[in-house]
Amino acid sequence: MGLTVGPKAYLISVGNELLIGKVVNTNLAWLGRKLTDLGYRVEGGLIVPDEPDLIAWAFSTAVDRGARVVVSTGGLGPTFDDMTVEGLAKAMGVELELNDDALKVIKEKYRGDLTESRVKMAKLPKGAKPIYNPVGTAPGVEVEWKGAHLFLLPGVPAEMEAIFESYVEPKLRKLEPLKCRSEALLKVSGVPESLAAPVIKEALKLSEKVYVKSHPKGSELGVPVLELHVTAFDDERERAATLVTTVVQFLERKLNNLGARVQRIG
Amino acid sequence: MGLTVGPKAYLISVGNELLIGKVVNTNLAWLGRKLTDLGYRVEGGLIVPDEPDLIAWAFSTAVDRGARVVVSTGGLGPTFDDMTVEGLAKAMGVELELNDDALKVIKEKYRGDLTESRVKMAKLPKGAKPIYNPVGTAPGVEVEWKGAHLFLLPGVPAEMEAIFESYVEPKLRKLEPLKCRSEALLKVSGVPESLAAPVIKEALKLSEKVYVKSHPKGSELGVPVLELHVTAFDDERERAATLVTTVVQFLERKLNNLGARVQRIG
Repeated sequence: MGLTVGPKAYLISVGNELLIGKVVNTNLAWLGRKLTDLGYRVEGGLIVPDEPDLIAWAFSTAVDRGARVVVSTGGLGPTFDDMTVEGLAKAMGVELELNDDALKVIKEKYRGDLTESRVKMAKLPKGAKPIYNPVGTAPGVEVEWKGAHLFLLPGVPAEMEAIFESYVEPKLRKLEPLKCRSEALLKVSGVPESLAAPVIKEALKLSEKVYVKSHPKGSELGVPVLELHVTAFDDERERAATLVTTVVQFLERKLNNLGARVQRIG
Repeated sequence: MGLTVGPKAYLISVGNELLIGKVVNTNLAWLGRKLTDLGYRVEGGLIVPDEPDLIAWAFSTAVDRGARVVVSTGGLGPTFDDMTVEGLAKAMGVELELNDDALKVIKEKYRGDLTESRVKMAKLPKGAKPIYNPVGTAPGVEVEWKGAHLFLLPGVPAEMEAIFESYVEPKLRKLEPLKCRSEALLKVSGVPESLAAPVIKEALKLSEKVYVKSHPKGSELGVPVLELHVTAFDDERERAATLVTTVVQFLERKLNNLGARVQRIG
């Protein structure tokens, strides 16, 4: 149940309906699973109302906390309280400007019947690009800001999922190649967790690409039992496996020295 | 679909399982509805992993942003990665200490069979109080910090709901008496939203207890149509109703001056 050790991602959900409890936030779970599978560490989720200042705060916070990727959902439609793009422009300190590509697509969708609220969907923060929405009308938005890749998607699940799968996912695969994961599960008997903890800490220093999670499993025949879950990520499967082996051997040696018995059980 | 204008509340959800998309966050929606009904403005939700530093960040952020009430869910159990209490203590800069009341309850629940991980559930930040859990074993936690009331609840929905309804809700009713809500819906024809907006802004200045939300409804017979939703909160129903009347009359007069037709439709 651990997070991956990949680059940081933050999720932002925009919408009063989520905060007053009218709608359950399934989008966040869906995106969390997708980004985790793509090798990202989804470090936080921010849920904010349809208010530009709070939306701006959410984007600034995610980026300032080191997110490499930020995906937002909601607030992209034509109505008055769709304010995600305005909030992002505010955070970035740039103007909204009419994007010709976005306008062209919207014009086609509405067969030329443009109203002010429809044109609104073609106004993007300076420097941003529209993402084609294969299901609905509001385009998604893509922009880079302070080294982070931001993707703004609509809140309607079918539209959000379609844009993610058709555009964002392939893009993220190119951006940050899918990390290969390798793992091992160790059963450690005979040392309490408090003694194993410093060894685990040392093991984590062997590589930033390795994560060791400790799960106390009570005691057997009077001796404490721990499970250690070792995970490594790398661009190449073989290197990930080598990292796991290195860390497992380190843990075995150090824990044996403390009098523990270490078995690889997975 | 507007937020209320009451005191600010923030929700914090702790758990890797939410961020990797293994679990959909129904707790946040349930609490959002409850707090909204109690007259709070639920201004934000923060979802963080089972990591003390990030949990600490979430509590600090909620309180620094002016929350009067913060409710967290998750991370209160006996296992190694239940870290909400540790994270809160870190944020507050206080030590964890064994709470006698909490220990007594846990001892009773386990019929005296205390283990280290069970005792862990009785360790609270200095100054905090346990809240009885009528369904499970991990007690809730209550503490005041920088003028905010913090309630830490377990992540298991049945336990979270039971503690909220038996303890937190009555407490919040005493703390912040249930605001009475009064509302009106106006149909405004003949002015575009861009002209109505400054009038709405002026109307909002009449009282901090009033909220006006504008919904553009397209056009009828060639003239633009808006709906204005006026909501007021007060401790007394009559005063809330009077506030709404005052604001509605103000809007009618000002919008009539701009050539609009205003009908009360709800």
